[in-house]
Amino acid sequence: MSQLLIIGLGLIGGSLARSVKQTGFCERVSGYGYRDRSLKKGVELGVIDDYTLDLDEAMASADIVVLAAPTLIAGEMMVDVLPRLKEGAILTDVASVKGSLLEAAVAANDGVVPPQLVLAHPIAGSEQSGVEASVADLFVDHRVILTPTPETNADALATIRAMWDSTGAEVVDMGVAEHDAILAATSHLPHVLAYTLVDALAASEASEDIFRFAAGGFRDFTRIASSDPVMWRDIALANQAEILGAIDQFSDHLSTLRDMVQNADGEAMHDLFSRAKAARDAFMIKKGD
Amino acid sequence: MSQLLIIGLGLIGGSLARSVKQTGFCERVSGYGYRDRSLKKGVELGVIDDYTLDLDEAMASADIVVLAAPTLIAGEMMVDVLPRLKEGAILTDVASVKGSLLEAAVAANDGVVPPQLVLAHPIAGSEQSGVEASVADLFVDHRVILTPTPETNADALATIRAMWDSTGAEVVDMGVAEHDAILAATSHLPHVLAYTLVDALAASEASEDIFRFAAGGFRDFTRIASSDPVMWRDIALANQAEILGAIDQFSDHLSTLRDMVQNADGEAMHDLFSRAKAARDAFMIKKGD
Repeated sequence: MSQLLIIGLGLIGGSLARSVKQTGFCERVSGYGYRDRSLKKGVELGVIDDYTLDLDEAMASADIVVLAAPTLIAGEMMVDVLPRLKEGAILTDVASVKGSLLEAAVAANDGVVPPQLVLAHPIAGSEQSGVEASVADLFVDHRVILTPTPETNADALATIRAMWDSTGAEVVDMGVAEHDAILAATSHLPHVLAYTLVDALAASEASEDIFRFAAGGFRDFTRIASSDPVMWRDIALANQAEILGAIDQFSDHLSTLRDMVQNADGEAMHDLFSRAKAARDAFMIKKGD
Repeated sequence: MSQLLIIGLGLIGGSLARSVKQTGFCERVSGYGYRDRSLKKGVELGVIDDYTLDLDEAMASADIVVLAAPTLIAGEMMVDVLPRLKEGAILTDVASVKGSLLEAAVAANDGVVPPQLVLAHPIAGSEQSGVEASVADLFVDHRVILTPTPETNADALATIRAMWDSTGAEVVDMGVAEHDAILAATSHLPHVLAYTLVDALAASEASEDIFRFAAGGFRDFTRIASSDPVMWRDIALANQAEILGAIDQFSDHLSTLRDMVQNADGEAMHDLFSRAKAARDAFMIKKGD
């Protein structure tokens, strides 16, 4: 292995390109996209070796095709990409939602799961975006979740696992539905809450003073509200049902806490805060924070 | 100046003690508390010079008394502390809520605002607590909000301003009500949301996997849920009305975003996420993040 094609060169695709070139996992990395701005930049920065705006040309020699476009565009592209995969080539992705992409792939493949499709989600990134922010070690010690189906080709799965292993990531397997539920809770919901909080405060009359007197805790809490709006719109649309469920579960708990505040129930609040602190502290000890 | 007394030696009181001793703003720093564990530790660590469990003795020679106990206890102590202030001495505090403490002081002072009381709120701290975590430079480049009233003695105000200036903090003045509203939005509400999120996830069936696959964004977002439960119970009780208002305002906005997700209204979500990102990015540029 051989030829890698990145479709949609941004932070994640660019960082993967840098890593596989650096380790030699791939001989050559090419780029494809609708526009050439990021691709030109990618060549200038040495992230990719070459690029084309012609999909036929791009896919003719690619052994591994990484669909790294925003989630919804990635879904729409399935119909163009799948039929152009060369014999024995593998299609993979980096999207934050797996169910919607699997559906799109099945719809684009006569109702059948494409065996050469290996869905993958590297849990890495930052509030920065774009190929300019890409780094070769972005995935080191980060988890990459693979969501193979019973139809997934075993060799294709092994190759994508080896690719992510080579980046220094910790690769784990999970079901598609389980992935989307867990990510809704740990990532999509927190982003929804952070965006909501910042927007609510910015809309308030006192917003200037509010932001002026915000401190470190606020900075950390709202960091993810500086994430890419297009990416998060797509995620919210693609993982709609799970995110609605997560919002509702959160709202129920917030309503319970609101009652405690309203009733000045200090004991119940102390219990809740202590439970939450213990859960987070235990989580951080495991993560080595 | 001269003799400083810290009532309730924890992270904030301990850090202030270290700073005024290091800069020479005070000659001597003593401690008082109900129990001697933290006070003993404070002497061992060189944070304070001495301590007593006798309030009369503690206050006999103190020129500045810093009420650094948790918010509710600080309010309850007003009735014991105010009458014991020596002639010309100043009482100040470090609590996160000002209205409830001012009320307690007025109630303990025959319905009159004590002129020698200067309410102050250093916006610093961390999810750590206790005198062991205290450091002399905790307040450097952090804001300290003073909330003087028309009745506040001008010399007392100037002294407390000078004390906080000496720690490297940026000192600003604000009304009591304005302080409590702004802090509800920027600090108390985010803590409520972080505690609620972690508790909701910990209560979920999939909690083990949820915490296992949580990434950096989640770690930052929930950092404040590792804060001291007693401190935050007290704040929630002391700033009840403002916090209820902040929760309701947030819930309205969350409900609006939920509708957007439910209606798959990508344009509205993109607008909201873009607005929030712009507001936060502008805020971070001002803060030099």
